[in-house]
Amino acid sequence: MMRAILASTSTLHNQEYLEYLLPYLPDLFKNVQEILFIPFARPGGISHDEYTARAAEAFSKAGIKVKGVHEYNDPVEAVRNAEGIFTGGGNTFLLVSELYRNKLMNVIREVVKNGTPYMGTSAGTNIAGLSMQTTNDMPIVYPPSFQTLSLVPFNINPHYLDPDPNSEHKGETRETRIKEFHGLNSQPVIGLREGSWLEIKDNKVTLKGMLQARVFKKEKLPFEIETETDLTDLN
Amino acid sequence: MMRAILASTSTLHNQEYLEYLLPYLPDLFKNVQEILFIPFARPGGISHDEYTARAAEAFSKAGIKVKGVHEYNDPVEAVRNAEGIFTGGGNTFLLVSELYRNKLMNVIREVVKNGTPYMGTSAGTNIAGLSMQTTNDMPIVYPPSFQTLSLVPFNINPHYLDPDPNSEHKGETRETRIKEFHGLNSQPVIGLREGSWLEIKDNKVTLKGMLQARVFKKEKLPFEIETETDLTDLN
Repeated sequence: MMRAILASTSTLHNQEYLEYLLPYLPDLFKNVQEILFIPFARPGGISHDEYTARAAEAFSKAGIKVKGVHEYNDPVEAVRNAEGIFTGGGNTFLLVSELYRNKLMNVIREVVKNGTPYMGTSAGTNIAGLSMQTTNDMPIVYPPSFQTLSLVPFNINPHYLDPDPNSEHKGETRETRIKEFHGLNSQPVIGLREGSWLEIKDNKVTLKGMLQARVFKKEKLPFEIETETDLTDLN
Repeated sequence: MMRAILASTSTLHNQEYLEYLLPYLPDLFKNVQEILFIPFARPGGISHDEYTARAAEAFSKAGIKVKGVHEYNDPVEAVRNAEGIFTGGGNTFLLVSELYRNKLMNVIREVVKNGTPYMGTSAGTNIAGLSMQTTNDMPIVYPPSFQTLSLVPFNINPHYLDPDPNSEHKGETRETRIKEFHGLNSQPVIGLREGSWLEIKDNKVTLKGMLQARVFKKEKLPFEIETETDLTDLN
């Protein structure tokens, strides 16, 4: 039975790293002494060690130890043995490239589908979808594939941002970008606003947090869904 | 001798498509009766024909005809015979994929380096850099390579947007994304604000328009440059 928290962002405005998610860690990571952290997305280019220390500080507040996957000689074995997994945000292209390079994409999918609890934030959430193709990140490295974990049967756009009605900027809005995605791809996309997350529990996918989320389907008008909506069959 | 206009955006707030660039077309496209339009980036998913009609309407104000590259049976030959080329904006991943699929990347580079005048806006400007890796667009399709035309010896970020000091949004700023790019890549990046463009004339690259641009170099603090700055040797 899958168990996961897939959060739009790690950090809310005026809060500490992972602060708003801390109350939910004891349930997701029940009886877990130590989680395996995937630091590959390296936000702002920080090192794997620095990033792991940041995660460790936050998880210590929930009484859970953290070890980075880069600290293991055999990362595949580390994933197989992990009590729980947390993938942090940063650059999705870099994260996906490193997951493939270390041969971790398939094994993470396998263990999570078999019950290893998983948490993702931002890029770590984006990769839980069918593909990374609704990321907001820059293609700073060329990954061998855009296919990702497919823990949910749709794509995720983290840090979803509504169009600013007062903007004079002509760069594409997020909604336009997702519309362009649907010109070539058919899976639904859920735009997760900061403060929202998807909970996977007993293989059921539910929208959590205080906010609505926005759902985009090919050739349909986008629509809002309320928190607690069941998204298990969004496809 | 190369001749080009590489514009951050096609359209300024409260203006018509290409309006602010029209005064510069007669000089760039001197003695040109008809330009070849590359509509592959398909903004918002519009068709090649619709997009070409939009470009034709704008160029008609400068007395120049427009034909879309998709209207030719042999697009490579069409590029070789073109009096001038204009590549419109939209999705850079789609544009680059289609340029490779139609075997046009090398031939466009070749004819432009040999003197065929070129104009790009947005995605059409992004591809004038060494690679498309500082695009803002979503990876809606997987291109065979991120390498692009290399008309200038650096990368370009079109629609450059300064951080909003009042934002409570935690998605990465443009500056953070470019910093992440420089964690893995060494070429400079120029952030072109909307209303700015690069002029290439007699192989000299100059910042044009009323605004400053922002230059990012690996392991250096970003800095502003004034309009009319010579960027020929930015590398």
